[in-house]
Amino acid sequence: MENWDGNEGTSAFHMPEWMQIQFADQKQEFNKRPTKIGRRSLSRSISQSSTDSYSSAASYTDSSDDETSPRDKQQKNSKGSSDFCVKNIKQAEFGRREIEIAEQEMPALMALRKRAQGEKPLAGAKIVGCTHITAQTAVLMETLGALGAQCRWAACNIYSTLNEVAAALAESGFPVFAWKGESEDDFWWCIDRCVNVEGWQPNMILDDGGDLTHWIYKKYPNMFKKIKGIVEESVTGVHRLYQLSKAGKLCVPAMNVNDSVTKQKFDNLYCCRESILDGLKRTTDMMFGGKQVVVCGYGEVGKGCCAALKAMGSIVYVTEIDPICALQACMDGFRLVKLNEVIRQVDIVITCTGNKNVVTREHLDRMKNSCIVCNMGHSNTEIDVASLRTPELTWERVRSQVDHVIWPDGKRIVLLAEGRLLNLSCSTVPTFVLSITATTQALALIELYNAPEGRYKQDVYLLPKKMDEYVASLHLPTFDAHLTELTDEQAKYLGLNKNGPFKPNYYRY
Amino acid sequence: MENWDGNEGTSAFHMPEWMQIQFADQKQEFNKRPTKIGRRSLSRSISQSSTDSYSSAASYTDSSDDETSPRDKQQKNSKGSSDFCVKNIKQAEFGRREIEIAEQEMPALMALRKRAQGEKPLAGAKIVGCTHITAQTAVLMETLGALGAQCRWAACNIYSTLNEVAAALAESGFPVFAWKGESEDDFWWCIDRCVNVEGWQPNMILDDGGDLTHWIYKKYPNMFKKIKGIVEESVTGVHRLYQLSKAGKLCVPAMNVNDSVTKQKFDNLYCCRESILDGLKRTTDMMFGGKQVVVCGYGEVGKGCCAALKAMGSIVYVTEIDPICALQACMDGFRLVKLNEVIRQVDIVITCTGNKNVVTREHLDRMKNSCIVCNMGHSNTEIDVASLRTPELTWERVRSQVDHVIWPDGKRIVLLAEGRLLNLSCSTVPTFVLSITATTQALALIELYNAPEGRYKQDVYLLPKKMDEYVASLHLPTFDAHLTELTDEQAKYLGLNKNGPFKPNYYRY
Amino acid sequence: MENWDGNEGTSAFHMPEWMQIQFADQKQEFNKRPTKIGRRSLSRSISQSSTDSYSSAASYTDSSDDETSPRDKQQKNSKGSSDFCVKNIKQAEFGRREIEIAEQEMPALMALRKRAQGEKPLAGAKIVGCTHITAQTAVLMETLGALGAQCRWAACNIYSTLNEVAAALAESGFPVFAWKGESEDDFWWCIDRCVNVEGWQPNMILDDGGDLTHWIYKKYPNMFKKIKGIVEESVTGVHRLYQLSKAGKLCVPAMNVNDSVTKQKFDNLYCCRESILDGLKRTTDMMFGGKQVVVCGYGEVGKGCCAALKAMGSIVYVTEIDPICALQACMDGFRLVKLNEVIRQVDIVITCTGNKNVVTREHLDRMKNSCIVCNMGHSNTEIDVASLRTPELTWERVRSQVDHVIWPDGKRIVLLAEGRLLNLSCSTVPTFVLSITATTQALALIELYNAPEGRYKQDVYLLPKKMDEYVASLHLPTFDAHLTELTDEQAKYLGLNKNGPFKPNYYRY
Amino acid sequence: MENWDGNEGTSAFHMPEWMQIQFADQKQEFNKRPTKIGRRSLSRSISQSSTDSYSSAASYTDSSDDETSPRDKQQKNSKGSSDFCVKNIKQAEFGRREIEIAEQEMPALMALRKRAQGEKPLAGAKIVGCTHITAQTAVLMETLGALGAQCRWAACNIYSTLNEVAAALAESGFPVFAWKGESEDDFWWCIDRCVNVEGWQPNMILDDGGDLTHWIYKKYPNMFKKIKGIVEESVTGVHRLYQLSKAGKLCVPAMNVNDSVTKQKFDNLYCCRESILDGLKRTTDMMFGGKQVVVCGYGEVGKGCCAALKAMGSIVYVTEIDPICALQACMDGFRLVKLNEVIRQVDIVITCTGNKNVVTREHLDRMKNSCIVCNMGHSNTEIDVASLRTPELTWERVRSQVDHVIWPDGKRIVLLAEGRLLNLSCSTVPTFVLSITATTQALALIELYNAPEGRYKQDVYLLPKKMDEYVASLHLPTFDAHLTELTDEQAKYLGLNKNGPFKPNYYRY
Repeated sequence: MENWDGNEGTSAFHMPEWMQIQFADQKQEFNKRPTKIGRRSLSRSISQSSTDSYSSAASYTDSSDDETSPRDKQQKNSKGSSDFCVKNIKQAEFGRREIEIAEQEMPALMALRKRAQGEKPLAGAKIVGCTHITAQTAVLMETLGALGAQCRWAACNIYSTLNEVAAALAESGFPVFAWKGESEDDFWWCIDRCVNVEGWQPNMILDDGGDLTHWIYKKYPNMFKKIKGIVEESVTGVHRLYQLSKAGKLCVPAMNVNDSVTKQKFDNLYCCRESILDGLKRTTDMMFGGKQVVVCGYGEVGKGCCAALKAMGSIVYVTEIDPICALQACMDGFRLVKLNEVIRQVDIVITCTGNKNVVTREHLDRMKNSCIVCNMGHSNTEIDVASLRTPELTWERVRSQVDHVIWPDGKRIVLLAEGRLLNLSCSTVPTFVLSITATTQALALIELYNAPEGRYKQDVYLLPKKMDEYVASLHLPTFDAHLTELTDEQAKYLGLNKNGPFKPNYYRY
Repeated sequence: MENWDGNEGTSAFHMPEWMQIQFADQKQEFNKRPTKIGRRSLSRSISQSSTDSYSSAASYTDSSDDETSPRDKQQKNSKGSSDFCVKNIKQAEFGRREIEIAEQEMPALMALRKRAQGEKPLAGAKIVGCTHITAQTAVLMETLGALGAQCRWAACNIYSTLNEVAAALAESGFPVFAWKGESEDDFWWCIDRCVNVEGWQPNMILDDGGDLTHWIYKKYPNMFKKIKGIVEESVTGVHRLYQLSKAGKLCVPAMNVNDSVTKQKFDNLYCCRESILDGLKRTTDMMFGGKQVVVCGYGEVGKGCCAALKAMGSIVYVTEIDPICALQACMDGFRLVKLNEVIRQVDIVITCTGNKNVVTREHLDRMKNSCIVCNMGHSNTEIDVASLRTPELTWERVRSQVDHVIWPDGKRIVLLAEGRLLNLSCSTVPTFVLSITATTQALALIELYNAPEGRYKQDVYLLPKKMDEYVASLHLPTFDAHLTELTDEQAKYLGLNKNGPFKPNYYRY
Repeated sequence: MENWDGNEGTSAFHMPEWMQIQFADQKQEFNKRPTKIGRRSLSRSISQSSTDSYSSAASYTDSSDDETSPRDKQQKNSKGSSDFCVKNIKQAEFGRREIEIAEQEMPALMALRKRAQGEKPLAGAKIVGCTHITAQTAVLMETLGALGAQCRWAACNIYSTLNEVAAALAESGFPVFAWKGESEDDFWWCIDRCVNVEGWQPNMILDDGGDLTHWIYKKYPNMFKKIKGIVEESVTGVHRLYQLSKAGKLCVPAMNVNDSVTKQKFDNLYCCRESILDGLKRTTDMMFGGKQVVVCGYGEVGKGCCAALKAMGSIVYVTEIDPICALQACMDGFRLVKLNEVIRQVDIVITCTGNKNVVTREHLDRMKNSCIVCNMGHSNTEIDVASLRTPELTWERVRSQVDHVIWPDGKRIVLLAEGRLLNLSCSTVPTFVLSITATTQALALIELYNAPEGRYKQDVYLLPKKMDEYVASLHLPTFDAHLTELTDEQAKYLGLNKNGPFKPNYYRY
Repeated sequence: MENWDGNEGTSAFHMPEWMQIQFADQKQEFNKRPTKIGRRSLSRSISQSSTDSYSSAASYTDSSDDETSPRDKQQKNSKGSSDFCVKNIKQAEFGRREIEIAEQEMPALMALRKRAQGEKPLAGAKIVGCTHITAQTAVLMETLGALGAQCRWAACNIYSTLNEVAAALAESGFPVFAWKGESEDDFWWCIDRCVNVEGWQPNMILDDGGDLTHWIYKKYPNMFKKIKGIVEESVTGVHRLYQLSKAGKLCVPAMNVNDSVTKQKFDNLYCCRESILDGLKRTTDMMFGGKQVVVCGYGEVGKGCCAALKAMGSIVYVTEIDPICALQACMDGFRLVKLNEVIRQVDIVITCTGNKNVVTREHLDRMKNSCIVCNMGHSNTEIDVASLRTPELTWERVRSQVDHVIWPDGKRIVLLAEGRLLNLSCSTVPTFVLSITATTQALALIELYNAPEGRYKQDVYLLPKKMDEYVASLHLPTFDAHLTELTDEQAKYLGLNKNGPFKPNYYRY
């Protein structure tokens, strides 16, 4: 059973001074984005950066690189350390520039560095991490370092590592074990190199997907004696933790940052509102005005997709299984239908359900010519793509991520990203969204590391609301947004602390 | 501590068959609004009804009525009963017509009558109620009757009773004790007449504001031995119940229907989105386009107000104390400011905070000429109206609910409803919204009455999510909305029951 | 053939200095709304004013007034003049307060008074006018007076005169002949008293509907020898003028102010965007969210209605006869249908076509129970209301302007304003909209009166674009809007004068 | 002086039967998009097509092609003709597939082929054309051919020719003279080869930019004796024609298709509403929510940009020089400011004015760090980019079309497309928009070619409104939109022909 309430109700819980929300009156040093940046260090910065419009995360050097496995290379950074394994330490300078650019878009982490500098709330923390290794992650890691932590890091995905960034981190002393294009064996080897170290034992875990946690459970269960907690970001990883908890096998407290308010709203509602348009445009160059669209599912993702398409002049239909979300769709101005009722007439079908086989072969058979089909939900199972791999249908790859599937009578449907996530495959994720997640992770680590004995048990927790609010407050300066502070009289009237939390746990936002 | 989770997780909980959500495939009898209505009964229906645009709840006979107190009258209904106390039993026919009209707009309750008819889930229930007495309440009461309950009823407000409706209820056999314009003493006398009856003892309470509950606590505490539960609708009443619970004094289970999802979203977001425009137009005839507006508070009410005014071409600023809501305001396209920053330039100030003294005399002093000030929050304390009652300011009543307050230099501000709730004072509440609340109340009564021993303890509960979903499903036919049913395979994949609940308790909608 | 181009292309045309658009840099005296108003004159101002929500134009004294015809009364104003005929000269003080309130909402006319004060551009003008007599008209008349004109005035409608305002005008010396509730004979008698005066002959006509023009044509055709021009506001009056022109019978230049850009956009698009919501709410208290609506006609009025309802969460269908407007509807996100296709399913039918029998009895027969039917177009012919006056249908007056029409099987439709204009019947017109029209009229009078010989022939003209732009510029301060001024270099690059006109005549806005 | 009215008022003007608008009742063959397409011809279709997300018009074979000038090559198509000059006739098959894809997105031209097939309204027409040579142009040319015309064609731009499409046209018998990467000399040589032909003389001109027209004026003025008219699409070409007309040198009628309603609304309002988002996302991956944006100019382009960004949650400010457009911006909910007032605070600056130096170096100096600057207007002069090419500023090319310009203190602004048009440089134009223009061109050619003697004089005309309406009607089936037909009675009431035109010429839409 998940501990929705956390323990924030207990009087024992106090946030340190540096973690208090700053209101508009107070001088906010970080109110301006940094403008004084060393001339030299930036002048060449990303001048050789990617021009690939599908991804801002492309590597500079993919094609020209040598084929030797990093595991077989002998590399040292400029300080003489060889406690890392990356593709090519010499790319460090390029990576550093990417990190510098990212820093400008992650004001919350930069503010955290300044505010908590004196306190070093992570002094003594030994964090082992397993995440995508990108410029944004690097800003997170260097923030953790600035707050006093020692870190060792591996990649949570065999393809997603930016080699230059990994090199830059290795160069500045972070033991990083990751490169783009790892084998399955490499993957586990890297993770093992992070935890299986002589004379060093982690006391915190930052995981994305649960593989690192799984490895420690399997190989080094004794390590948990010293571990103070796990911070997990992904749906999958969180699911695993709840299962461990139910089975009574979770032996340290874990923080579910996936379900924090800010992360949910940004990753889903606000981000999808923009990425649905972006993903469709980049792949099909279609015009939205006047198009008939059916969106399957009216959760946060569906709400974002519907709002954006309606605003662009599309006519949007919604399907739902949940009567409450269905009623919301009605009140927001969408016809609630069953997919069968509109499948013959729509120009676009978008799935946002998290369910499987929402679009079946039967639906696909009935779509009109040129109908576009794509998935914004969280799995690749929503569209029954497998059912299209039959001999009578012809597949044509029209562009990257775009297939025409052609019926014997010439009808073709346009399938995007082969039914995988459109927004991950065909558009980019703004740094601002990543900033919110990274800040939440940092605060979750600080909270678990500093929590007094007994505050957290061997269970899965949501971030205390006060910290969620703090993450949000750190992002307000980006919008030059000025928060109002309660007067003493008002705080008393509302029965609230002037620094929050401002809402009951069940508040829905 | 409130029991956010309810007990729906327990395997013991099953909804009866008639309470299952109906999906679009299934024949839905109630899918069409009723069109076959007896000619005769409706022909004169509301022909003499109110033409007052501020309220659809006006009484036919206010002015011409006699002055005798109902307590001093001897009245009998046509069946010879005198177990009631209303203004004038002879108005019953008019009231019946109002009830018939309301029935057309409350399809969910009508559907409930049909569906649960066989089961009589309230057989044996003796419900004492204390609510506003309107046509919509009458539909609720007669639904409870149709489901097997006996009811006795008083008014929760000394002004809000529709005398004709009360008469109609009395005529058809409901012991109703209520009239428009009760004294304080009358008020408690009516409540007492409901509970203090020879040979009849309530086993269920339906309260709105907590006065009835309070009275029983105070006068007849022993009655709680037979009472199976309390259903409470209002913020105030719910607050009282939580206090009782905290103090360990709550001696029966109570259901908080105020915080159910559907009620919250409809009463706040969707209803205020419309009523802010309505309230402003009816009072001031202003044009929204191009006007600068500041909305204080970005909760559900504020979100509704902002969305509506933005859509009408106003330029909207938002103030907030909560960083998460503040960030939402930013992402939704509103400048987040402190009130002081914009107070000199705005044309309209709207409070939606639930807080006190959000608009102070200092703010009022700085507003520009003709600035409109109004309150959409839940108290009458948000604007410091008291501070305007000083000798140097002149008040002019311009229209009903509209005052000009004039400064010595001639500047005037336009104060609506003297700072009380604009939407309650100056616009009307659609029957559709009342229908959702009434249906929720009915289901909460059924649930508490039928719950097996031990399901609910002496605590305050939220309606099980499944019932919230059921209420929503009953309102979908109004929109000709067609719900999709999970296949067995999909339900298994998602780990859900095909009939719900479809979301975890912490889902935010 | 109408002279769409006006004559602004001729190099001879120059606007006087005071008529130049003021840009944001320049000090704008009228930038602030007036705040210094004499304490005494306002203190009681509209304290007895109307509380009728349907109309801000209600009279104070309707019921109590005497029955003597004004034509039979002997009245003198305080200066001893009796050259007027109003209901009761003693109501002048009340009327003066209404005028003062209106002045605050008509900043453009007040600015005009100040700016043109020195020049007195209407010195020598003898204007005879025939319009609705309201506080807004009074502000116009007094502005014309301030600019040097002599005026005599009658009402263009037998019901619309505000008696107090007429009294106030008479008191301050304007020969006004108008009262509420004139007979047909009174109507023409009043007009005649305006023009048939010993020792005074009009040289300008301001008409609304063409009745005054018609009367002079019929009775005093010789008067046209001295008349410099006609300014006409209404669709009907303009139509009559074009017919005169085509028949070669128009003997002076006439200015069509009905089709000026600002008037069109404000009276239609922007005003209807708000009044459709207002009219529906005040009459039916319905909820817009989720309702299915069909809007017949996608001109400016239809565009306004559709935008508002879509924004409030209604699902909107559009019918059109014009393929270009139809394509716009598609691109704006509305399903384009034939009325028959959706008539069974919609909750609301709104006509905005200017056509006849758009909604036929056949359509009405097929509507679902409780369907609301109303007209926002410009005639009362769009809905075939006559077809509903048959014996088998029962009419019930539910509220003012709201009828239920009931079919033998009990189905009822809700007919608003008996098919007449919803926005005129059931909502109010904001003063801001009237201000734009009044300012346009004033400028048209100035232009025609001062135009050099030969600029205008015996034809119907649109206001020169430069003046349309000037009217717009006078209304910008209301929104604290700051116009940018072209640099000399930019003006040269664009081939424009820095003071306008800024667009070719065919520009569509 | 342009003839805004055309001659549509003359009773002599009748559209042929095939050109009548079809209403929803009538069977519309083209109502469904084509679904029966020969299997073979499409199966490999665009399998090798471009994967470049910035342009759907990329060439397959750029890199591998030989360097010989097409002018030096000897090429024959399969029928033995060598009357063409393209890069490589062997690429014809690839081009044919592109054309087939385009045909699916240009239903209006395909419908025109069918409808006018019997009549061959261009029989005898000898059209010389000079336009971009793309798949969409090919569909237009082949439509002209199907309607009876002979065509010869050159490119209007030295870079924009799709070589494969040119080859496909040459293969199917069209004398095409164009390739990607022509020299200036090649350009005029190609044009000359189109017109200077033995035994063939053009009688119609289709031009885009005026170069072809200019060449004939200069070299073969006598040709105009047989030329029945010019159809010109571009702003520049139209400007040239009006200048010729004013100078009395225009010796044939010319049709300005640039200013037709449908083209204007689609190319500007509707297309920019989508392309502003697309262009910003593809270049910067930014998040729109909460961003502060200033849009300079509130014409059709500005209106489109503002609507889109507001819908995505940006806070939008507008600058304007025209008070009418300024008032529209106010009523649409945008703060009207001078650029200086907001330049320090905005995140994005977008120019849409058609003016020069709207954004000056002074503005650029004052922008905040990371401010994005781009141009959506029609020239590359709106942003004073030249002023940024000074030694103290550092330019960094970050991505294709994205430069960082860095100030000495480290502040950087993000300049898109070096100030050229964002939507042309960084996003794609949907085929649907091109379809509207191509259809308008085809109808203009038909109209000029078939007009009886005297209908058009030696002047510049706008397309008769009836044809504009016809173009619109041909595009409605794409949206499954059903037009309503006037009844005889209604047409008479409105004084309209049932087939249009439906609006006066000055109607603004």
